[in-house]
Amino acid sequence: MAQQHLDPPTDPTAGPVSGDALAGYLRAQATEFLRSLRQHRETGGAANGSEESVEAARALRRSARRISGSLHTFRPLLDPDWSEGMRPELAWLSGTLAREHAYAARLERLLGALNRLSGSSALPAQSGGKAVGQPAATASAPGPRTQPAGNLTVGAAKAGALLDRQLTLARTRAHSAALQALGSSRFHAVADSVAVLASEVPLTPTATSTDLRPPAAAAEDRLTDAIAALPLVTAGHPYNAEALVHGLSADTAPQPQDAPWHQVRLLLRLHRYAREVLYGEECPIDVRLLAAGQALNRHRDAAEAASAAASAARTPRIAPATAYALGVLHADQRHEVEAARFAFQQAWQREAVRTP
Amino acid sequence: MAQQHLDPPTDPTAGPVSGDALAGYLRAQATEFLRSLRQHRETGGAANGSEESVEAARALRRSARRISGSLHTFRPLLDPDWSEGMRPELAWLSGTLAREHAYAARLERLLGALNRLSGSSALPAQSGGKAVGQPAATASAPGPRTQPAGNLTVGAAKAGALLDRQLTLARTRAHSAALQALGSSRFHAVADSVAVLASEVPLTPTATSTDLRPPAAAAEDRLTDAIAALPLVTAGHPYNAEALVHGLSADTAPQPQDAPWHQVRLLLRLHRYAREVLYGEECPIDVRLLAAGQALNRHRDAAEAASAAASAARTPRIAPATAYALGVLHADQRHEVEAARFAFQQAWQREAVRTP
Repeated sequence: MAQQHLDPPTDPTAGPVSGDALAGYLRAQATEFLRSLRQHRETGGAANGSEESVEAARALRRSARRISGSLHTFRPLLDPDWSEGMRPELAWLSGTLAREHAYAARLERLLGALNRLSGSSALPAQSGGKAVGQPAATASAPGPRTQPAGNLTVGAAKAGALLDRQLTLARTRAHSAALQALGSSRFHAVADSVAVLASEVPLTPTATSTDLRPPAAAAEDRLTDAIAALPLVTAGHPYNAEALVHGLSADTAPQPQDAPWHQVRLLLRLHRYAREVLYGEECPIDVRLLAAGQALNRHRDAAEAASAAASAARTPRIAPATAYALGVLHADQRHEVEAARFAFQQAWQREAVRTP
Repeated sequence: MAQQHLDPPTDPTAGPVSGDALAGYLRAQATEFLRSLRQHRETGGAANGSEESVEAARALRRSARRISGSLHTFRPLLDPDWSEGMRPELAWLSGTLAREHAYAARLERLLGALNRLSGSSALPAQSGGKAVGQPAATASAPGPRTQPAGNLTVGAAKAGALLDRQLTLARTRAHSAALQALGSSRFHAVADSVAVLASEVPLTPTATSTDLRPPAAAAEDRLTDAIAALPLVTAGHPYNAEALVHGLSADTAPQPQDAPWHQVRLLLRLHRYAREVLYGEECPIDVRLLAAGQALNRHRDAAEAASAAASAARTPRIAPATAYALGVLHADQRHEVEAARFAFQQAWQREAVRTP
């Protein structure tokens, strides 16, 4: 439906783009990967958790995703054995590194939402478990206040403490897993492969005379096809209440209605990376793609936060007030899911504007 | 802000509208009141609960509201002692008659929402208490299903049964109160006053030469002033998440943020009745007013349903799964509140269109 709005990223220059552009892009990303890895080690690595270390891990994931995505989109131009072997290793690495950050961000999102919903700032701040067992809101609430039975602010504070405990534990485990991964021989093998890539990209013999535009166009087609299959008409009607349908169903699996949106998020990313390969250093920012991608990130984050709230509500022996607060929180985050779909629809129907 | 969009209901004809129009309107509404009352008695009255009886009670309330509203707006044209004495009695009557219907509608709305949220139709239908203690969804769920601990569908079913029990009890009490009211000497005094009104409206001596348009315009001004004070810019941004702010605060009172909207709902009604007085039988339907009024009714209904869900969650000794479902339900209805505000904003900014 949005086909006519799409800018032509497959024609960045007057003529075809050769495999040399791909080699240059991969070399640059591999160099960036090695630089981030070095910085990560120098700043204390995963054991440190300092801002520089977190930033280095983020940059590492960023380049790993770009290498992996480009290997996928431009498969025909690369040595198939090598690239087929490389992709799952890069996916393993960026997945392992991403998890710790994801749990931290999820907790932050949920505590922020609880604060907003309570109209207070007395909930435990994200604390790595320090506030566990001490419902800070009751202790530090401004002024004395008669608390009725089943007081919901206590519920919100308890829900916050429960989520803090569960997600901090998950984060700690993810942290250990990341540490282990970075010390593993599997990781060293990936790093070695990337080091080779930084100096010599294993292109096929015909790659330098092959036009990159058809595989890039195919990546874009996969994106537009997937978007065309999304329920965008519904998403464009505010307050359609779709995201919370089945919000109380017995199924504990992630909502199946989210999957096509998650898929579009991945395809959008591949399309963006393909544009970067074609345009090289000069790649203009496409604000429409940027806004659409941000909406899909928000969609994913809210969906996972909603799921974490529902999962916490299944903890045995929690108080009804805690469960109530988690129910409100779950619905709030599913509402965020719906809002993100609306934002995506709005971003996508907008004309492409380029700010070079 | 919407001043320029307002149609001129204060100028329905070329010239002024005299107090005779008010007298005619009040006589017609009083006659309608007496007709509904007769029909209500003939169809078995409040004890019956048949469709005709419910319809008669609705018509009775409808005319009582119109009489009361007109007495208010056109105060200066009426005998002050008489109209000051009449209004609280009419408000008492329509309030008493409205309550039973309101509880029934609230239960229907909440069970409908629970069904939607569960993605099932296995919840107890509104049953006047029959399903109490028998969570129908567990018994009649299609096919055998392994239920994990804290299963949320069971929570939804239990929440439905709890709401059914509480709101059916409230409805039964309201029903008894309405029966008592209709048999009281207080009611007979109101009915007698309305019977007098049907033949002889107590206008002031100067009323027949007084223009109705200034008091009608004042009613409209009160409406537009109140609307101008609403946060319509926020309401016009979908998914602003305003309605759920303080959704978990300890305050059990109705949300203060709702009050200005409820006030606009009442002022919109007074404006509509004033238009009816001015235009008489020929009163054209103003679709904008109609849509705005429907949005505000939805706002009120959703706000009260959200409040009922929160209130049910404070029932002692409920299961966490029940509380969780009530939390989801509360948030869902607060989203409905937000959606209704958006709908009002959309309706109000539209140009007035008249279909005579």
